[in-house]
Amino acid sequence: MEAFSDGVLAIIITIMVLELKVPHGDSLSSLQPILPVFLSYVLSFTNIGIYWNNHHHMMHTVHKVSGTVLWTNIHLLFWLSLFPFATAWMGENHFSTWPVALYGFISMMAGIAYYFLAHCLADLHGKDSTLAKALGKDRKGILSVVFYIVGIGLSFINSWVGFSMYILVAAIWFIPDRRIEKNMQ
Amino acid sequence: MEAFSDGVLAIIITIMVLELKVPHGDSLSSLQPILPVFLSYVLSFTNIGIYWNNHHHMMHTVHKVSGTVLWTNIHLLFWLSLFPFATAWMGENHFSTWPVALYGFISMMAGIAYYFLAHCLADLHGKDSTLAKALGKDRKGILSVVFYIVGIGLSFINSWVGFSMYILVAAIWFIPDRRIEKNMQ
Amino acid sequence: MEAFSDGVLAIIITIMVLELKVPHGDSLSSLQPILPVFLSYVLSFTNIGIYWNNHHHMMHTVHKVSGTVLWTNIHLLFWLSLFPFATAWMGENHFSTWPVALYGFISMMAGIAYYFLAHCLADLHGKDSTLAKALGKDRKGILSVVFYIVGIGLSFINSWVGFSMYILVAAIWFIPDRRIEKNMQ
Amino acid sequence: MEAFSDGVLAIIITIMVLELKVPHGDSLSSLQPILPVFLSYVLSFTNIGIYWNNHHHMMHTVHKVSGTVLWTNIHLLFWLSLFPFATAWMGENHFSTWPVALYGFISMMAGIAYYFLAHCLADLHGKDSTLAKALGKDRKGILSVVFYIVGIGLSFINSWVGFSMYILVAAIWFIPDRRIEKNMQ
Repeated sequence: MEAFSDGVLAIIITIMVLELKVPHGDSLSSLQPILPVFLSYVLSFTNIGIYWNNHHHMMHTVHKVSGTVLWTNIHLLFWLSLFPFATAWMGENHFSTWPVALYGFISMMAGIAYYFLAHCLADLHGKDSTLAKALGKDRKGILSVVFYIVGIGLSFINSWVGFSMYILVAAIWFIPDRRIEKNMQ
Repeated sequence: MEAFSDGVLAIIITIMVLELKVPHGDSLSSLQPILPVFLSYVLSFTNIGIYWNNHHHMMHTVHKVSGTVLWTNIHLLFWLSLFPFATAWMGENHFSTWPVALYGFISMMAGIAYYFLAHCLADLHGKDSTLAKALGKDRKGILSVVFYIVGIGLSFINSWVGFSMYILVAAIWFIPDRRIEKNMQ
Repeated sequence: MEAFSDGVLAIIITIMVLELKVPHGDSLSSLQPILPVFLSYVLSFTNIGIYWNNHHHMMHTVHKVSGTVLWTNIHLLFWLSLFPFATAWMGENHFSTWPVALYGFISMMAGIAYYFLAHCLADLHGKDSTLAKALGKDRKGILSVVFYIVGIGLSFINSWVGFSMYILVAAIWFIPDRRIEKNMQ
Repeated sequence: MEAFSDGVLAIIITIMVLELKVPHGDSLSSLQPILPVFLSYVLSFTNIGIYWNNHHHMMHTVHKVSGTVLWTNIHLLFWLSLFPFATAWMGENHFSTWPVALYGFISMMAGIAYYFLAHCLADLHGKDSTLAKALGKDRKGILSVVFYIVGIGLSFINSWVGFSMYILVAAIWFIPDRRIEKNMQ
């Protein structure tokens, strides 16, 4: 399961760069129109990097999988697979309302899917397992979904404010899940 | 063999998203034209997910491969590799007759190719092997091919009726092959 | 080394399908213009499948690698990476002279690169190794390069005759390298 | 970590070929406009090949990773992921000033990121580790960054002179890191 997920994440993180359309001019200013797409690319690259990192950590605590786990994992990959699309739409439209809201929606759905996967795995391993203890009440997981919802709402007032909520979530997750690292020792 | 197949499936499932062309407008309504492509994408994502899942389960019962097995596997990957094309053609033409029929044809060929692969592996391992017992008369495999043929036929009467046959097949396979799981215990 | 090569081959074989541009019409006849590209795709898919198959077999006889081996392997991947380009150019131009000749040239260079890799590995393992014995005088390897040269030449008289030479080489290699299988027992 | 990095590198090296846009004509001269893109492709293919090679060698000396290492690795992959873009921009603009300077900038950033990764790993393993001894003062790593800076500067005088600096760096790294090989024995 990890090999397939690693493969999908590696492809998502890499094909996003195909949305950085090569400009026709050769001056420095011809790069300007793709700057927003680049900014959007940086956030998505970081987000996929975070998912890979935490997915990787989580898989190291896992001893068995079930059919349900396989499908909650594919469900997560489905939402992550929409990142290249959402990234490009948000960047090409210079972070206007609807694209920012959609980006938040897809991020939120991926967050919920990750929550399902983590708790599905924790249930399978019992409440005394490393994973279950590490997750605990999973405040971080719930918090990010809440932040994404707030971000979507704020993007209808000012899309840049909404967007900064997404950056905030990325910042929270930037550090690999220390809870698992701590409980493994 | 599994690593290569996993790689190909991971790439197919991910590059399909490149067919979701980013719309030029930034309003919610500018997403409308790509809704059919998205619907088509969801079905294909599920289908490739099913193939990965079952392929994965099957490979775990396999102890040896032959030259013939390698080629029946590549034959399966060939038909699966045409999914991004068929998905985009069907979505972009709003599920009209020929695109729906072609999607069914490619799904059917993939189904037949999987049938060949499974039976080729079962023959190699003998009729008392886990795999051979799990496959049995392989009603599910034969049924899906029949359903695809019916779906192709129906798509010439009403393409949505044909399309719903494909969804039906996906629904049948959604649950990982319990026959193998059962026989492995 | 095998994981990286498997990855590159899996990506090459899959992204070629992106050159099958989705037609705008939804009639059966709108598929006609892409038939030559499809034919070209089938040959390339088979060719990459053959390389994967034989590369895979060869790697199973290998116990050590050197810096030179790593680079002869990357050299092989370089020529194989040009297949999507050559495939699309040949298909889109309906197998006219220059595209067919270029396809033959890239196939020939890949053949030479594989020859180098195989002999470089055989040298490293000594002349009594499984690999060295299996390769022998490597008539099949030399023959394919000769056939490609003949095919390139013939394509200037009649490009379809040249093209059929490439199909001939694929047919010769279709069966996995039995020489290695035989010598391993 | 190696599987994910190998996957990303395999995808980067392969999708670059998608920037070699298939020309419309079928004459030999219709290939001429893409010759600069091809030249640019060859350099980038070699560069990614070098990174894969050295990354691969380095990972074989590694026994443990930390959260910081994971992120310095993703940071390296980020800069490498921009190669397809920089390659296409440089090739399509026939090696004019700004595109050559940007290519140099991205190469330089990748060089710095690799330096960080290598030293981060060396610190983690202690100064008596194989890796730390192999790196030593890492003259080669520092030298390439200096050469890239010089190349960027020179590209504003004559972009081809700047470009040849990048070829020089590739030539220096072409041979796999013998320092590690030596110290491992």
